[in-house]
Amino acid sequence: MSDIVLHSYFRSSTSYRARIALALKGLAYRQVTHHLRFGKHREADYLAVNPQGLVPALLWRDGTVITQSLAIIEFLDETVPEPPLLPADPKARARVRMLAQMIACDIHPVNNLRILNALKDRFGADDAAVADWFRTWVAETFAPMERLLADSSETGTFCHGDTVGLADICLVAQVANNARFAVDMAPYPTIRRIHAACMQIPAFVDAAPANQPDAE
Amino acid sequence: MSDIVLHSYFRSSTSYRARIALALKGLAYRQVTHHLRFGKHREADYLAVNPQGLVPALLWRDGTVITQSLAIIEFLDETVPEPPLLPADPKARARVRMLAQMIACDIHPVNNLRILNALKDRFGADDAAVADWFRTWVAETFAPMERLLADSSETGTFCHGDTVGLADICLVAQVANNARFAVDMAPYPTIRRIHAACMQIPAFVDAAPANQPDAE
Repeated sequence: MSDIVLHSYFRSSTSYRARIALALKGLAYRQVTHHLRFGKHREADYLAVNPQGLVPALLWRDGTVITQSLAIIEFLDETVPEPPLLPADPKARARVRMLAQMIACDIHPVNNLRILNALKDRFGADDAAVADWFRTWVAETFAPMERLLADSSETGTFCHGDTVGLADICLVAQVANNARFAVDMAPYPTIRRIHAACMQIPAFVDAAPANQPDAE
Repeated sequence: MSDIVLHSYFRSSTSYRARIALALKGLAYRQVTHHLRFGKHREADYLAVNPQGLVPALLWRDGTVITQSLAIIEFLDETVPEPPLLPADPKARARVRMLAQMIACDIHPVNNLRILNALKDRFGADDAAVADWFRTWVAETFAPMERLLADSSETGTFCHGDTVGLADICLVAQVANNARFAVDMAPYPTIRRIHAACMQIPAFVDAAPANQPDAE
């Protein structure tokens, strides 16, 4: 059995998700970091690992490569069942996946580095326009997410009950990303409360961008 | 038990995904359609169903609302196990989810209607610039996806072996969307072959945008 390897970048919020899941599962792993701003993820040796040239990519013990952060986390949950990152009931699982995907499909993809760079390169967007773009898509999803969380009796200390899981992982990584664009978090008291509860857990702190070997 | 209801829009590729899954599972359902171009999905009665104001949303028999197309499909797969839309082995499941999420996280979100409209409204993008934007993100993901599919012995008639599943659902909905922006499919022979194989299956044809009650 080889080491588990995570190809990552400290500031990538999808890498952050994978690091939290690995830490919650108590799995030791080695990070190979790729500096996205210098295009290190587009070099031939990394494209041989992940032809998409994105991080994170998980190299499992047997050499299997898994990309896409939510696929990585579900794989870890199916392979190392304790502690579970998804509840057992299908409707509860759907609720957790729905909350996770609101962030993973509706916020992060439109706000990641390659898209923000394309807005600058193609349309001459300046820093203010880029920041406004970022904040727009956070608000479009965080407003209904706050309502879904605040209105549901299924919300507990965390997004779903009192056990931390997949939705919390996505929430924390997004809130960390928001800070870089000074997103006003005042309208989201439930999201802030859940974020604060997560940050009491060492796995979330240890996995944070600032605590990675490639942090600047 | 009430009817299963799918809130949808004929041209929405995420609605198309949900319709294919419902059809593959042999589930009868009623569609409530929302005309996205006229903002019908942002009206109060629909926001009471889905505060995010997006389609699709599944109303299950007991009244549970599930949004996010991949959460809907995994819920259907866990609730109505036959025919399975994901393989049994965790590594195989990870491969299928990875392929599905390459489309669901890296292509669709950056190319959907609200983003294309924002490019026009905020940056004055004309039709040619919008079409080029759309094609860029398809190519960024379809090129490595073609390579992953063509190079793997796990690829069969469909994305994973000879059983149709979650990745094929996302692939077909994306290929349908591509046609609206005249994406050149010549560089993707494996994707084209899998698409053609899927379109031999009635569930994929019946769920297609052109065959919906709200098709124009």
